[in-house]
Amino acid sequence: MADRIRLGMVGGGNDAFIGGVHRIASRIDDHFELVAGALSSTPEKSRASGEALGLPRVYDDFKSMAIREARLKNGIEAVSIVTPNHVHYAAAREFLKRGIHVICDKPLTSTLADAKKLVKATETSDALFVLTHNYTGYPMVRQAREMVAAGEIGAIRVVQAEYPQDWLTVQQDIKQAEWRTDPARSGAGGSTGDIGTHAYNLACFITGLEARELAADLEAFVPGRQVDDNAHVMLRFEGGAKGMLWSSQVAPGNENALRIRIYGEKGGLEWAQEEPNYLWHTTFGEPKRLITRAGAGAGSAAARVSRVPPGHPEGYLEGFANIYTEAALAIKAHQAGQPRGPDIVYPTISDGLKGVQFVDACVRSSQRNAAWVKV
Amino acid sequence: MADRIRLGMVGGGNDAFIGGVHRIASRIDDHFELVAGALSSTPEKSRASGEALGLPRVYDDFKSMAIREARLKNGIEAVSIVTPNHVHYAAAREFLKRGIHVICDKPLTSTLADAKKLVKATETSDALFVLTHNYTGYPMVRQAREMVAAGEIGAIRVVQAEYPQDWLTVQQDIKQAEWRTDPARSGAGGSTGDIGTHAYNLACFITGLEARELAADLEAFVPGRQVDDNAHVMLRFEGGAKGMLWSSQVAPGNENALRIRIYGEKGGLEWAQEEPNYLWHTTFGEPKRLITRAGAGAGSAAARVSRVPPGHPEGYLEGFANIYTEAALAIKAHQAGQPRGPDIVYPTISDGLKGVQFVDACVRSSQRNAAWVKV
Amino acid sequence: MADRIRLGMVGGGNDAFIGGVHRIASRIDDHFELVAGALSSTPEKSRASGEALGLPRVYDDFKSMAIREARLKNGIEAVSIVTPNHVHYAAAREFLKRGIHVICDKPLTSTLADAKKLVKATETSDALFVLTHNYTGYPMVRQAREMVAAGEIGAIRVVQAEYPQDWLTVQQDIKQAEWRTDPARSGAGGSTGDIGTHAYNLACFITGLEARELAADLEAFVPGRQVDDNAHVMLRFEGGAKGMLWSSQVAPGNENALRIRIYGEKGGLEWAQEEPNYLWHTTFGEPKRLITRAGAGAGSAAARVSRVPPGHPEGYLEGFANIYTEAALAIKAHQAGQPRGPDIVYPTISDGLKGVQFVDACVRSSQRNAAWVKV
Amino acid sequence: MADRIRLGMVGGGNDAFIGGVHRIASRIDDHFELVAGALSSTPEKSRASGEALGLPRVYDDFKSMAIREARLKNGIEAVSIVTPNHVHYAAAREFLKRGIHVICDKPLTSTLADAKKLVKATETSDALFVLTHNYTGYPMVRQAREMVAAGEIGAIRVVQAEYPQDWLTVQQDIKQAEWRTDPARSGAGGSTGDIGTHAYNLACFITGLEARELAADLEAFVPGRQVDDNAHVMLRFEGGAKGMLWSSQVAPGNENALRIRIYGEKGGLEWAQEEPNYLWHTTFGEPKRLITRAGAGAGSAAARVSRVPPGHPEGYLEGFANIYTEAALAIKAHQAGQPRGPDIVYPTISDGLKGVQFVDACVRSSQRNAAWVKV
Repeated sequence: MADRIRLGMVGGGNDAFIGGVHRIASRIDDHFELVAGALSSTPEKSRASGEALGLPRVYDDFKSMAIREARLKNGIEAVSIVTPNHVHYAAAREFLKRGIHVICDKPLTSTLADAKKLVKATETSDALFVLTHNYTGYPMVRQAREMVAAGEIGAIRVVQAEYPQDWLTVQQDIKQAEWRTDPARSGAGGSTGDIGTHAYNLACFITGLEARELAADLEAFVPGRQVDDNAHVMLRFEGGAKGMLWSSQVAPGNENALRIRIYGEKGGLEWAQEEPNYLWHTTFGEPKRLITRAGAGAGSAAARVSRVPPGHPEGYLEGFANIYTEAALAIKAHQAGQPRGPDIVYPTISDGLKGVQFVDACVRSSQRNAAWVKV
Repeated sequence: MADRIRLGMVGGGNDAFIGGVHRIASRIDDHFELVAGALSSTPEKSRASGEALGLPRVYDDFKSMAIREARLKNGIEAVSIVTPNHVHYAAAREFLKRGIHVICDKPLTSTLADAKKLVKATETSDALFVLTHNYTGYPMVRQAREMVAAGEIGAIRVVQAEYPQDWLTVQQDIKQAEWRTDPARSGAGGSTGDIGTHAYNLACFITGLEARELAADLEAFVPGRQVDDNAHVMLRFEGGAKGMLWSSQVAPGNENALRIRIYGEKGGLEWAQEEPNYLWHTTFGEPKRLITRAGAGAGSAAARVSRVPPGHPEGYLEGFANIYTEAALAIKAHQAGQPRGPDIVYPTISDGLKGVQFVDACVRSSQRNAAWVKV
Repeated sequence: MADRIRLGMVGGGNDAFIGGVHRIASRIDDHFELVAGALSSTPEKSRASGEALGLPRVYDDFKSMAIREARLKNGIEAVSIVTPNHVHYAAAREFLKRGIHVICDKPLTSTLADAKKLVKATETSDALFVLTHNYTGYPMVRQAREMVAAGEIGAIRVVQAEYPQDWLTVQQDIKQAEWRTDPARSGAGGSTGDIGTHAYNLACFITGLEARELAADLEAFVPGRQVDDNAHVMLRFEGGAKGMLWSSQVAPGNENALRIRIYGEKGGLEWAQEEPNYLWHTTFGEPKRLITRAGAGAGSAAARVSRVPPGHPEGYLEGFANIYTEAALAIKAHQAGQPRGPDIVYPTISDGLKGVQFVDACVRSSQRNAAWVKV
Repeated sequence: MADRIRLGMVGGGNDAFIGGVHRIASRIDDHFELVAGALSSTPEKSRASGEALGLPRVYDDFKSMAIREARLKNGIEAVSIVTPNHVHYAAAREFLKRGIHVICDKPLTSTLADAKKLVKATETSDALFVLTHNYTGYPMVRQAREMVAAGEIGAIRVVQAEYPQDWLTVQQDIKQAEWRTDPARSGAGGSTGDIGTHAYNLACFITGLEARELAADLEAFVPGRQVDDNAHVMLRFEGGAKGMLWSSQVAPGNENALRIRIYGEKGGLEWAQEEPNYLWHTTFGEPKRLITRAGAGAGSAAARVSRVPPGHPEGYLEGFANIYTEAALAIKAHQAGQPRGPDIVYPTISDGLKGVQFVDACVRSSQRNAAWVKV
């Protein structure tokens, strides 16, 4: 496994959600090996989290990690920054100036001033900077972008983007909610920064356009909330296209209902994150067509980032992984001489026998004109 | 990473689909490290494939691999068998008798005789045997099973299972099709063995029932095909429930449309593999409820195998992984002093700046009564 | 309105569901005027029902109605028979032999013997006989039939038809349930006769094929029920196509989930009664296309029986009719000098003013660069 | 039929779409009889159209119709006005001042000045005025309104309304398009007046709220178009709720995709016109529930305006009507001694026999343990 890129992580301690996502994402295609971390701003938590992950090198803070790893012969080549927004700039700077590539969660920073300083930091560094606007990674988003670029829907006229959620409908005291609704850590935007930026990025990514001006009506509906939890935005893009963007965290019945619809002079495209394997395409005057990931109608941009055949939702891999993980848990219990926990579930030899018996019975029955046979 | 289980693989060479799936699945939760393989029945292909994967130890055949790995101090602890069906038994036997855990693709074997021998082999081995009926790994399948067991739909009456595909609508000459339609390698069942067993396994897994008898009408619609490409089966389960099972590989418009519907005295459950994050639940006399993975209404069995919050389809991780992989490709090109390929796409610092500018513009506009502001 | 066909009705008294449906259906295109009825086997109920409908001529029984109407100068030209199944034959015979056209509910009769006698009766009569297998009236069903006939999906291989309901999941004591589960009135088939015949008819109608043989597994799941409430049927059609048919009245979560899927050598078609305005069409190797009623891709057979533009579900007319009916109720109350009931709801002049103010405000705001304006 | 309300019609000549809709709607529940009309502003067209409809009394213009009908003993009691917008006021005034009830298409008028005058006209008349904002007639819209009023989703926070179409994506020369894009006849609003008013009306109808102020960005994307074909509107309602409204006639892939989503402190409601029989209801913290027309969870407001059982989309009646109309066409051809046209299709006695044979075969097969039997 000599060619895995050595990766470090800032943030992503035990109770963080997005850190775990980054770690899994880094493993799926086997390009990275996580070897170091400053996983929390609290040194004790950083150490405990690093131990839980079996990390070779754990640091109390990102700065000492950057200094030391830059000096090590086999120090990290890249770092993932998965902290709350207000830490992004300071952390990224330390790694960039030491030539360590940065993979950073969005939004870029909590303030525009920090964002501009970070831009400068990347300009003076040889290292790469990657922002995880992860929705641009979906195959059908790539497909849509490729189709727009190829002129398949003509010049863009209308862009409707939305990202409603419901988890902040009431006051929440969990950690995820707490820093996201604190302007000191999240920035001046609430839903706009947390999810509106995703919708906006997606609109720009697919259309290749940028907004020229906007008019926004932000609201904090939950009493006492300091940042917007609902945003209504009208957009005017370069070239004359117009759009609406809605982000909300107070829309009951919506989990992560990111959705984008793009209409041009010749046709339209519609994509929804919760059904990511499908892209609706209409050429004006023809029936709607449902393009599926890796299926008929999908092109090279989608194929390049697809791992499984059409009709297997991408979660297929996670379902498969669950079987492997159940197996690992059983194997480890077995190796430790312990009984297997009652909640470990995987298909057994007996299930396999049943399957073969099923096929055998089908064949026997069919050979006898579909007579009833014992299974 | 000391506690990763050392894994070997039989089959899964360069042009195989399911081998790659097993490898990704084994990495997602970081429990395994692939260290050895006999990746093809053709030694040259095995070696070339092993080299492409960077495997430390590559073998010409599974038997020599089993013998050698069993003797090594740090030999493999488990093996994945991902060959065509007719090899499963012979391969599994070699590892089982040496105490190496087996993770084996379905269907168990190509013949009932082999299946029974394999059952014996597991009975005389201390090693575990795991069959990858992967659809049982979906959180909402676990949820359905838990609900049936808890009596939420009452005693089961009707089970409708189906798994239509369309890829064999015409004669196909690709490798995937070739061995699957050859009874010598696939077994006497065509669609029944390849996908019917999945549907049957799922029916049994969720309901906890087994079929007592069945009547099957198999057909090979494509001229010259030697195994069924369409199967109509009526089922009678223990306890009086009845069912239908349809598997087909000649149903245009269906990719992997595995679907199961279960009806009991008190209610019904419906799940479709292509929309795996959703489970429809009806209590007779009440509106249908849409239970979402990790969302309201989902219980502990689903939560235990969920990685991301509700509303993120499980493919969210793959989308995220695509960003990581783009980053890896860019980093490797950078390290090699080569230009980044034009098809490598990831969000950049400039996208990040745009996002922060978007938030800043939203806040400025909103503060001025939603006036138009420059972005 | 001189050219309306004078219509009579047998059955369809006050508490019957299907009689009302027939009456509405007869009015929609203004071809019929209901002028006579024998609306119940109980004379008092017949008279009360006829009075409620304002019928000019009401009879105690269908035979006296047939005799008298045949002699009248302006007697009925056609009759709708909407009784329980066991009455169909006797009633139809009386009208047919007097040259009165018969529109009869399905299934044709309760016994095969009656069915054959009725066939004879039509052969010796000059009158027309129309059976209301109403699902063949849907535009997209006509579309599917036209496409199959045109060879758009090639020779048929597989036909999957199903009609699950849930209303008989438990014992029901309502009138609708009572005669349908009484073999003396319904016939030997329960779900098979009531809804299975619809699914079967639809399969034959669209494909143009007839079944050669079948194997059926019927079940009465609800204790004490005398006819099947669930039927699993395998079908073999002339020419080699094969099918499955499932009818059920004990599948919780299904209202009238009639669905048909047809696969041929070149493509597939899928239609569901609960989303009747859509027909999915796949040509093997191309993306699925969604053909909409009266929209792009819909042909002349569908257009011929469509009344409203695409994108207006056919229920659009009923929604519209509700406004008219609210208006009628208000007008009648007004004419009677009575107050309008509180549940009568229709858009008023004030709503109209608001609409125009909305447009006016939109235009004013837009003229001022989308400034906020009072509505 | 003595109690049918005598109805007249202004507009709705041969080539008009909405006139036919009004006529069907008026017949469905048998409350009206159309007896007079001034069906076109061109007298010849009015007469030809009236003759085609078999109307007893046809007029050259609406004024002479109003004068004469008001004097007749059995003159019209109500009139439907289905002309282009700019005629609404002048026509309505003539009937209102003579005590004839008015049912008028939307939008109310083409100018705000006319709207205010029409308000006055209704205030000085004893006659009723009904505006056909027909979407308020859908049972599930009534259901939503009833639920909001009952506080089931709490105080309203966010209202998202949209009505995209695609038929004006390119310049259209058909009559429907021509007057709708002419400000002299349509009014200053294009998509805003034609469909935006529907979306706005629906938002107000369901929530019971009115907008206090709005900001609108209108656009005419098609070169040379004089009225907006796309409108982006932000809304502020009384009480603090906020909303967005999008109307568009240039969004390819949208037929009549009117959709409304309403979110309150406790829950959310979502309804789409193209799937009108369903209302999604979420109580925050619980799974989404799918309330179906006349099904479990539907209340009295929906039941009051429902005609058929749940699971039958409302188009069920039109499908049924198609069978009746085919019957009528066949009967009329028969009466005229003419052959039946080849495109007249209805189920025949032979189809009925097949249905009974199907049931008979099912029962026979099932009695013989599901053996194959001839159909």
